[in-house]
Amino acid sequence: MKNVEKYTRGYFMPPVKSLKWTEKEYITEAPIWCSVDLRDGNQALVVPMTLEEKLEYFQLLVKIGFKEIEVGFPAASETEYTFLRTLIEKDLIPDDVTIQVLTQSRDHIIKKTFESLKGAKKAVVHLYNSTSVAQREQVFKKSKEEIIEIAVSGAKLLEKYAAETEGNFQFQYSPESFTGTELEFALEICNSVLDVWKPTADNKVIINLPATVELSMPHVYASQIEYMSDHLNYRENVILSLHPHNDRGSGVADAELGILAGGQRIEGTLFGNGERTGNVDIVTLALNMYSHGVDPKLNFENILEIIEVYERMTKMKVDDRQPYGGKLVFAAFSGSHQDAIAKGMKWREENDCKHWTVPYLMIDPKDIGREYEGDVIRINSQSGKGGIGYLLEQQFGLDLPKEMREEFGYTVKNVSDRQNKELMPEEIHQIFLNEFVNLSKPIEFVNYHFTKHDDYQTVVTVKINEEEQELNGEGNGRLDAISNALRTKLGVNYHNLVYKEHAQELGSESNAVSYVGITDDNGKVFWGCGIDVDIMTSSVKALFSAVNKLTANTHLTSKEGHFITSK
Amino acid sequence: MKNVEKYTRGYFMPPVKSLKWTEKEYITEAPIWCSVDLRDGNQALVVPMTLEEKLEYFQLLVKIGFKEIEVGFPAASETEYTFLRTLIEKDLIPDDVTIQVLTQSRDHIIKKTFESLKGAKKAVVHLYNSTSVAQREQVFKKSKEEIIEIAVSGAKLLEKYAAETEGNFQFQYSPESFTGTELEFALEICNSVLDVWKPTADNKVIINLPATVELSMPHVYASQIEYMSDHLNYRENVILSLHPHNDRGSGVADAELGILAGGQRIEGTLFGNGERTGNVDIVTLALNMYSHGVDPKLNFENILEIIEVYERMTKMKVDDRQPYGGKLVFAAFSGSHQDAIAKGMKWREENDCKHWTVPYLMIDPKDIGREYEGDVIRINSQSGKGGIGYLLEQQFGLDLPKEMREEFGYTVKNVSDRQNKELMPEEIHQIFLNEFVNLSKPIEFVNYHFTKHDDYQTVVTVKINEEEQELNGEGNGRLDAISNALRTKLGVNYHNLVYKEHAQELGSESNAVSYVGITDDNGKVFWGCGIDVDIMTSSVKALFSAVNKLTANTHLTSKEGHFITSK
Repeated sequence: MKNVEKYTRGYFMPPVKSLKWTEKEYITEAPIWCSVDLRDGNQALVVPMTLEEKLEYFQLLVKIGFKEIEVGFPAASETEYTFLRTLIEKDLIPDDVTIQVLTQSRDHIIKKTFESLKGAKKAVVHLYNSTSVAQREQVFKKSKEEIIEIAVSGAKLLEKYAAETEGNFQFQYSPESFTGTELEFALEICNSVLDVWKPTADNKVIINLPATVELSMPHVYASQIEYMSDHLNYRENVILSLHPHNDRGSGVADAELGILAGGQRIEGTLFGNGERTGNVDIVTLALNMYSHGVDPKLNFENILEIIEVYERMTKMKVDDRQPYGGKLVFAAFSGSHQDAIAKGMKWREENDCKHWTVPYLMIDPKDIGREYEGDVIRINSQSGKGGIGYLLEQQFGLDLPKEMREEFGYTVKNVSDRQNKELMPEEIHQIFLNEFVNLSKPIEFVNYHFTKHDDYQTVVTVKINEEEQELNGEGNGRLDAISNALRTKLGVNYHNLVYKEHAQELGSESNAVSYVGITDDNGKVFWGCGIDVDIMTSSVKALFSAVNKLTANTHLTSKEGHFITSK
Repeated sequence: MKNVEKYTRGYFMPPVKSLKWTEKEYITEAPIWCSVDLRDGNQALVVPMTLEEKLEYFQLLVKIGFKEIEVGFPAASETEYTFLRTLIEKDLIPDDVTIQVLTQSRDHIIKKTFESLKGAKKAVVHLYNSTSVAQREQVFKKSKEEIIEIAVSGAKLLEKYAAETEGNFQFQYSPESFTGTELEFALEICNSVLDVWKPTADNKVIINLPATVELSMPHVYASQIEYMSDHLNYRENVILSLHPHNDRGSGVADAELGILAGGQRIEGTLFGNGERTGNVDIVTLALNMYSHGVDPKLNFENILEIIEVYERMTKMKVDDRQPYGGKLVFAAFSGSHQDAIAKGMKWREENDCKHWTVPYLMIDPKDIGREYEGDVIRINSQSGKGGIGYLLEQQFGLDLPKEMREEFGYTVKNVSDRQNKELMPEEIHQIFLNEFVNLSKPIEFVNYHFTKHDDYQTVVTVKINEEEQELNGEGNGRLDAISNALRTKLGVNYHNLVYKEHAQELGSESNAVSYVGITDDNGKVFWGCGIDVDIMTSSVKALFSAVNKLTANTHLTSKEGHFITSK
């Protein structure tokens, strides 16, 4: 691509090797979660939320279990100021929830911020200023010392106004654009602020290190975090917070590796809403932990309800492939995937498994309030026998023999191929009924009678071309007798009749369902199904269906035949 | 969350420490790219592509610069078979492009696969079988030895049919569900296949290690890759390929860290289409490299065209926050972001910068065919002065003084707040015209005359409440004289008049634009703007506008005043 020489890496490596985190394998404990949906998320919406919408969204966050919620930048917007006052004055903040507000390091803004917080039971006041090389040079045109002075003077003002204001305040500082800042300087400015606030065990300070813009690969960010974690003063009284964005598509990795590297707190949003490519998606982070057997301490057991509120408030859409939440993530289109899922589900039923190991499904969709019937099993022309068989069994009580599943799979595939669309479960059921069940052309079953001496003798009445005929046959079973009648009297050639029957109990009715497979002279097996209240009749109808399939096939050109199996 | 004990980690760590990759910082060279859009991507679509759509998509991939393209699973679908034959028979595959087809390890499927490839100039035949613990136990119910036998017998069949078929074939093997496989076993099965194929420098083999389901954090996947890379036989004649999925939202990180760990080839799709949460997004991978100054060897200079074809063919939508491609990723809503971008852009113009360092923008949107006018600068109630000022300057030729930008920013913010919506550029322009330009209430400018002795003397005609008055004034400049007339004769109190003027050249017209700021007794500054073909008249109109703002404000209640600045 042209202009590639215009780019370089805008981040900085730690001055010392910071790779201890690589020895850890996974996250063993949930971090402190802080939702920034109502600030960073809301500020990036094409249509920001109204006061009423913010209140509803706040309730949603509380219900999910967030204990820290950034509610806005109250000195910068009338709506955010009013929202905050409403929360405090109407006593809408549960006792175990801390609200957080953002402020720049300017006297009148900090003053206004504390005015907006009057009477808050517990609040984090989040001070930030930008520290990157680019911002210092291009935006603020200030030296490092002057940038530190902005942070330190703001830190002092927070102390001053906190002392004057009714309420309970914790302090947070962010070197904004941290990822574009030399690490020694980021450390110096954070330590300068910490020296003002002098955190104690009872009054911890939050130091938040944002990937304001994601500039590096995630292992570099993790090393930056480890360096900071190792060198911050008052470390035991500092809560190290991460605030990743997703510019390189690795916000989740930044957060996860960053936690291994010393991060104790995550700022993010539901489904990754936020400026540009968004903040890190807390739903994914939490359910990733969950899938490893670690309780995230957030509740996504009803993810569909959460998506509904989220989409209504933000007017954004959860992407179809968004982990855990997306419409298609518990769908399997490929035949081999569907087959493996079906077998895995069955294995689970039969083997009292301790752990979830069903192939292709990260977690049991039911654990987050989702379903796989009709969702996992979506049928298009790429789907195979496993999924379709599972669908017929689960939704329609039809437990096809394995070989018949395969044949039916190809039938469905060809219909889907031809129509160039995904087939809905009911359509697939209909194809099965039309193509395999109680077939009456060219040979229609009318009636049968049996007598028994040593063997069974039958007189079976059939109708061909609107004309009834009575056929006689004999065999060691009743179905065998009828089969012999068809073979000898009508000259239909087949052998090796296989048979399966089960009851179909769906709703109030109970039917008998029979499947018959017969093999023609070329070794090809033809399958038919019969459904009837009577077991014997269902099996006879299944035989007629199979015979009709075979008879019809002898007139087919190879082009209309099945794919692979018709060879 | 309940049921958390149902989950555990389903992946395996390397038996030896494999962390050499962590010493590397970024990717220095583009990998071999293989698009699997037409196979893995297409198979996961609700509406799979038609033959015509596949042909158009194939052309798109070629145009972007893919040299390896997986075109399907020809033995499993009539459409894919036909598509492949069309590509070969109509000679639609450029000489430098290799097609790739997928096959299971079954004789009739491999046979059919080679039939479909007859006459291919160069093709990769991609054999796979599933190797994970779960699949071995639940799906295939086979021992490790039996699973190896599936792979080895398939490898032999590939050799056999390749020898019998006209064409030029390279072999690829994937231990499918690699991420759920014990690494020693994955290594054993890959080495068993390699022992059949015995790759040479002239006939390299591709070993592809899929994160079929993303089961671990990305650094674990990278360590798995490093272990395999270190222990594969014939390593120098093996191309190590990665095929990450995105179940944990870290497909990009898997690919990037996996490349550091020894991966030489990436299988993925445009915008991450594919089963469930999708394959890794090659657009993001490529442009991540680009943003680090490394040529990805794929061309996304016209990303909007690519999105158009992609969305039309797949019926999927590129998410609004998808890195690089999403609608909102080059937008900045926050005032401080807009301000920094405006300053960064200006810095770039003034300082002949070698490297792109504009804050908040990963890359110059223009380099991928996107724009920032009207896209970067979207205005909602969260937006500040920087963005709005930049917009008025770029789109309407109005270069407001810095302090006036701030005031106007708050005006716009309050309108957006009240209307609860994003404002379009034209709406913002209109607000400026209505609220600041050529204001005539309560004092309307009608005319002026000047005479000059030592100072300037003026007679300025004004209309108040439909009644004309002539006011006399005197000053050391013409504007000063008029200002003194207003102050002394009408009793409007202000001081410290500041003035700025520029020509507005947009379209064929050229106007003079003047800005005047006056300070009232409380120290508050009021800004007005005048636009006229005549320079002098534009400045007088600007003064009248400012005076009218001030006069109007003295009757405002504090509630209607500006936010912060009106204090």
